[in-house]
Amino acid sequence: MEWIGKDLEKLREKKPLVHNITNYVVMNTTANALLAIGASPVMAHAIEELEEMIALADALVINIGTLDEHKIYSMFKAVEIAKELKKPVILDPVGAGATKLRTKTSLKLLEVGDISVVRGNFGEIAALLGEHGKTRGVDSAVYDKEAAKDLAEKAAEEFNTVTAVTGAVDYVSNGKRTYAIENGTPMLGRVTGTGCMATAIIGAFLAVEEPLKASIAGLTTFEIAAEKAFEESPYPGSFHMKLYDWLYRIDGALIKERAKVREIEP
Amino acid sequence: MEWIGKDLEKLREKKPLVHNITNYVVMNTTANALLAIGASPVMAHAIEELEEMIALADALVINIGTLDEHKIYSMFKAVEIAKELKKPVILDPVGAGATKLRTKTSLKLLEVGDISVVRGNFGEIAALLGEHGKTRGVDSAVYDKEAAKDLAEKAAEEFNTVTAVTGAVDYVSNGKRTYAIENGTPMLGRVTGTGCMATAIIGAFLAVEEPLKASIAGLTTFEIAAEKAFEESPYPGSFHMKLYDWLYRIDGALIKERAKVREIEP
Amino acid sequence: MEWIGKDLEKLREKKPLVHNITNYVVMNTTANALLAIGASPVMAHAIEELEEMIALADALVINIGTLDEHKIYSMFKAVEIAKELKKPVILDPVGAGATKLRTKTSLKLLEVGDISVVRGNFGEIAALLGEHGKTRGVDSAVYDKEAAKDLAEKAAEEFNTVTAVTGAVDYVSNGKRTYAIENGTPMLGRVTGTGCMATAIIGAFLAVEEPLKASIAGLTTFEIAAEKAFEESPYPGSFHMKLYDWLYRIDGALIKERAKVREIEP
Repeated sequence: MEWIGKDLEKLREKKPLVHNITNYVVMNTTANALLAIGASPVMAHAIEELEEMIALADALVINIGTLDEHKIYSMFKAVEIAKELKKPVILDPVGAGATKLRTKTSLKLLEVGDISVVRGNFGEIAALLGEHGKTRGVDSAVYDKEAAKDLAEKAAEEFNTVTAVTGAVDYVSNGKRTYAIENGTPMLGRVTGTGCMATAIIGAFLAVEEPLKASIAGLTTFEIAAEKAFEESPYPGSFHMKLYDWLYRIDGALIKERAKVREIEP
Repeated sequence: MEWIGKDLEKLREKKPLVHNITNYVVMNTTANALLAIGASPVMAHAIEELEEMIALADALVINIGTLDEHKIYSMFKAVEIAKELKKPVILDPVGAGATKLRTKTSLKLLEVGDISVVRGNFGEIAALLGEHGKTRGVDSAVYDKEAAKDLAEKAAEEFNTVTAVTGAVDYVSNGKRTYAIENGTPMLGRVTGTGCMATAIIGAFLAVEEPLKASIAGLTTFEIAAEKAFEESPYPGSFHMKLYDWLYRIDGALIKERAKVREIEP
Repeated sequence: MEWIGKDLEKLREKKPLVHNITNYVVMNTTANALLAIGASPVMAHAIEELEEMIALADALVINIGTLDEHKIYSMFKAVEIAKELKKPVILDPVGAGATKLRTKTSLKLLEVGDISVVRGNFGEIAALLGEHGKTRGVDSAVYDKEAAKDLAEKAAEEFNTVTAVTGAVDYVSNGKRTYAIENGTPMLGRVTGTGCMATAIIGAFLAVEEPLKASIAGLTTFEIAAEKAFEESPYPGSFHMKLYDWLYRIDGALIKERAKVREIEP
């Protein structure tokens, strides 16, 4: 997994501009995660400035955590522009399955946009595939290792996009090849927006790497940083702060030492 | 006060889904407080998804800290749905008294909704009772122990809802019985959204307890966590982080040791 | 520089109410910075309550970081009311130059409002003066010490307002006198909203001091707090928390010991 450290170096050298149309709960959180890792975040949703901002950006993050009419309109406009300008896009379908609005909006974005990666929890990705009742608010109500792998593969094929199903084990698939990542800590579930941070960090890697490897690199880097943070502070407030510290401190050596990434035999 | 620790255990077992329509300043803060204590927060205000989300939720938190036309509309729709579905609702009338819009919106929500608890500072609750000039921005301009007790009782009767007036001493009343809580630390006033966090945590307790006891349990738990955080870090940034740590760490034994709750003789 | 410590004492005694119409990313962050230093923040953008809120406020902070139609309308209404009520206003033209919407909105606010101070980075202030291509997202793409000084002076004359161009060295000018401040730490660039915090803190000083001195006092105080925070924690998450701690702890003695402020000979 030495390539992950090299991608991280490339990311830090490029300092990619990552444009986020994201939810109000995590705006500050994801901006800080992007700054800590070495990217440059920008948040903008006014229709009038989308084209200029996306033209400047190296990647686009769409996160549907707090929707409203105006934001939905901005998101569709943004993925359309990104498609034209050939900018990579990652979609976080927060809470898909909890409400029809969230499921429908995510599916429509996957349909009209040229989405490079979709990252969600088990319940969210299941909902996108029409398997309902597995989301509770914005959390996954269930998690099943074997089913998670299948979901990632099925969604990757169905939506013709790299899919990452994150949980105790993460599965990342492009429909042909599938990888499992076993880093991280359950404490991530006790801080709001950590899934959204993971998505944003994959977004930053999309500026320097193709989607499948960007997803693996982003999740592995983020989750190893979380492991180190948890070792220093086992409680959620202090852990949260240390997470930014470790997104800043993490390097290729640490990733090489800790990465638990393996390809799943088909 | 052993029942508070037991309610906290129930809360953590149930992991209630708490739906928040809240202000932009504290969204991240209250989500993290709810996660730390053991609840599952969700934020959603799009009209199209309110019914589904409230149906899933165990409690609804309405916080008027940053109003606009659309949000007000969502709030009214939400309390209406919650009434129909018999979900408990807590209202935080942030800044009532500072502007007519805030006072009017709060009063109207109390009128049309079936509000279980209203929690505010002295100036805010005074404003709801028509006693103006006691709010300055979102802070209480004055605080008077004896008057606070009277306010809590009067508001509880007037609005037919449990009322919590928080300050140096908190008074919680259902109009018949009134309790004083003397936990907490003035450092809470140096971190934004701590009142809103207290409200959200009462919201989580509403999923496992009736309104009067849920309010006492929520405030006592929150304020003891704040005492511990302050003992570890007497400065606002570090204190803020430790507050989440202690919302996670607090248990029945600590509550029993520290709780300063007493019933006021009528 | 003993006057800065005295202004800080005045600020803490007055506890000014600082009204912010600001971006979603930094609302929590700037509210906490204002509370830590000793001011009282309020965030409100509903047209219906602007007049009452600004009447209560001691200063108004306008930050264009996340624009939309409604917010722009609120901002224009707010600067108009502030002008009428003679309240000091500080403008943060976040991302000016990155998009036409941001440049145009900033210029129009400077034109119709009675703006006391504008604070931006090199690229943003350059864009306001028609020198484009120096902003990348919300970060300055270039920085040049000599040019920064000239920009501050030119903008101060052009817009007839105190201008602060912040960077490795900050330049503050009222068009006649120009000051350089060399405090701070590059780690400020690794936490989102630190520029916005600096703006908000100048806003608090505007409640007790004239614009040129308020800008110098605000930047110096903020950046010395950042130096102390960085000495305690050289990583972004922990640094961020310590920054609030030191905004709370900083006093006249520390400012006197550390301030690197000098007037530039014309």
